[in-house]
Amino acid sequence: MSNAYDAAYAMERAIRSSNEYVELKRLYDLVNADPASKGMFDNFRNIQMMLQQKQMMGQEITQEEIEQAQKTVQLVQQHPTIAQLMEAEQRMSVVIADLNKIIMKPLEELYGLPGQGS
Amino acid sequence: MSNAYDAAYAMERAIRSSNEYVELKRLYDLVNADPASKGMFDNFRNIQMMLQQKQMMGQEITQEEIEQAQKTVQLVQQHPTIAQLMEAEQRMSVVIADLNKIIMKPLEELYGLPGQGS
Ligand SMILES: [Ca+2]
Ligand SMILES: [Ca+2]
Repeated sequence: MSNAYDAAYAMERAIRSSNEYVELKRLYDLVNADPASKGMFDNFRNIQMMLQQKQMMGQEITQEEIEQAQKTVQLVQQHPTIAQLMEAEQRMSVVIADLNKIIMKPLEELYGLPGQGS
Repeated sequence: MSNAYDAAYAMERAIRSSNEYVELKRLYDLVNADPASKGMFDNFRNIQMMLQQKQMMGQEITQEEIEQAQKTVQLVQQHPTIAQLMEAEQRMSVVIADLNKIIMKPLEELYGLPGQGS
């Protein structure tokens, strides 16, 4: 299995030096360096996470919570740096999902895709 | 990012040819080739998944369900091939977790470990 570890370290270096990661880190640091931006972004993230958690637990999400979430989405979308950061995160997560799909192929062949049954 | 894809394909090949994966596949095929073993293993898996789902949804798990789960665990543990398969799965999942930890280091550095806050 040592070859797999070598490949993992190579992937780690490749991700770290990729344009996608360098840009993501630049925007992340930029947002977090400004207290107002950081506060707005943290608030948005907390609300998203709270709603996700509720959904996973099968709890009801109120109309008020939906409206509050929509407001924070509109707020961060109007903030150019945060909007760019969110786009950079989106691009990064697509890449990570692609890479994971490649790596997990051998196990997927054994067990089938999640949700497809056996 | 093309280097990361090259590394992902190298990792895929390394996993597929590893002793851990070859042994896992051998045992998985052995269990699934025998209808009685397959039935016992599928039943065990279904009960585990049902309980996990209930736990995630915050639903109560009855004493009866706990006893039923314990019985199926005892049953599969007494089946030599299924017991070996479960150990092979355990070893494989440790390796996959290790590899994921290596690959995810750059993102972990940005966002912190899950549960550690920001
Ligand atoms: Ca934009
Ligand atoms: Ca054993």
